Amino acid sequence: MTVTIRPAERPDAPLLLDFIQQLADYEKASDQVEATLADIHQTLFADRPQVHALIAEQAGKPVGFAAYFFNYSTWLGRHGIYLEDLFVEPQARGAGAGLALLRGVARVAIAKGCRRVDWQVLDWNQPAIDFYRSLGARHQETWLPYRLEGEALERFAGES
Amino acid sequence: MTVTIRPAERPDAPLLLDFIQQLADYEKASDQVEATLADIHQTLFADRPQVHALIAEQAGKPVGFAAYFFNYSTWLGRHGIYLEDLFVEPQARGAGAGLALLRGVARVAIAKGCRRVDWQVLDWNQPAIDFYRSLGARHQETWLPYRLEGEALERFAGES
Repeated sequence: MTVTIRPAERPDAPLLLDFIQQLADYEKASDQVEATLADIHQTLFADRPQVHALIAEQAGKPVGFAAYFFNYSTWLGRHGIYLEDLFVEPQARGAGAGLALLRGVARVAIAKGCRRVDWQVLDWNQPAIDFYRSLGARHQETWLPYRLEGEALERFAGES
Repeated sequence: MTVTIRPAERPDAPLLLDFIQQLADYEKASDQVEATLADIHQTLFADRPQVHALIAEQAGKPVGFAAYFFNYSTWLGRHGIYLEDLFVEPQARGAGAGLALLRGVARVAIAKGCRRVDWQVLDWNQPAIDFYRSLGARHQETWLPYRLEGEALERFAGES
């Protein structure tokens, strides 16, 4: 079945929120979705959005999305793309929608003069890891992701 | 010695490029710096820059920098900060410049309504890891960073 990719538009906000919740469910983090419809409008559909989304459709029906923003490499002196989310509804998997979404993001990267697309994958998500490796993506295994958040961030920022 | 933090400005471009090269040297990637002075001007000092830098000074002399951009969490529906680089010149280390830079970035995060600061550290850089952990930062150990770049990216984007 042919998959088409298009940029997400304002009327897609409820759909995106639903996809985001479904992705969190799949990633065993159902309770971590705090985003509201207003948040989606104020970020993805701001006047000058700093985050963007693509929608995959099969037979005119949305079946998945990709969300991305522009990161930056000081070594390259240029922006790249960071793929924040990639999701395809369970019943639509295996028909190429994930591949088409990732290719859509790769095409944005090339069109914008970026040389890299980065993302993270959960270490137990072997189907996704196999898929990414088949495309030529490589695990950046010497780099460890760290995060300072919530109260620890507030406390640290508040110290003199 | 008192450390002061200020936003980087256009005349800092050569200094930033020098710091970027020094950081790559430290990270055993000297040959990976492709950024030029023109690149720095066109990105960090664009009309609407999507990447930013702070400079640390001791006794009026620049000793280090932090570069950051805004990332995004679909689960939170809001932007966070990604710390791309944090560097202090070897002879200035141990006097609090790194701490002051990271705190400067944390304060930007709080001021902008962000709840997270993310970054990556090289797995062999134990002094940095110890420093980050002491602040309450946590290794996001279930997440693996992946990258598609260069010819593999171009090939993938070009396929139909």
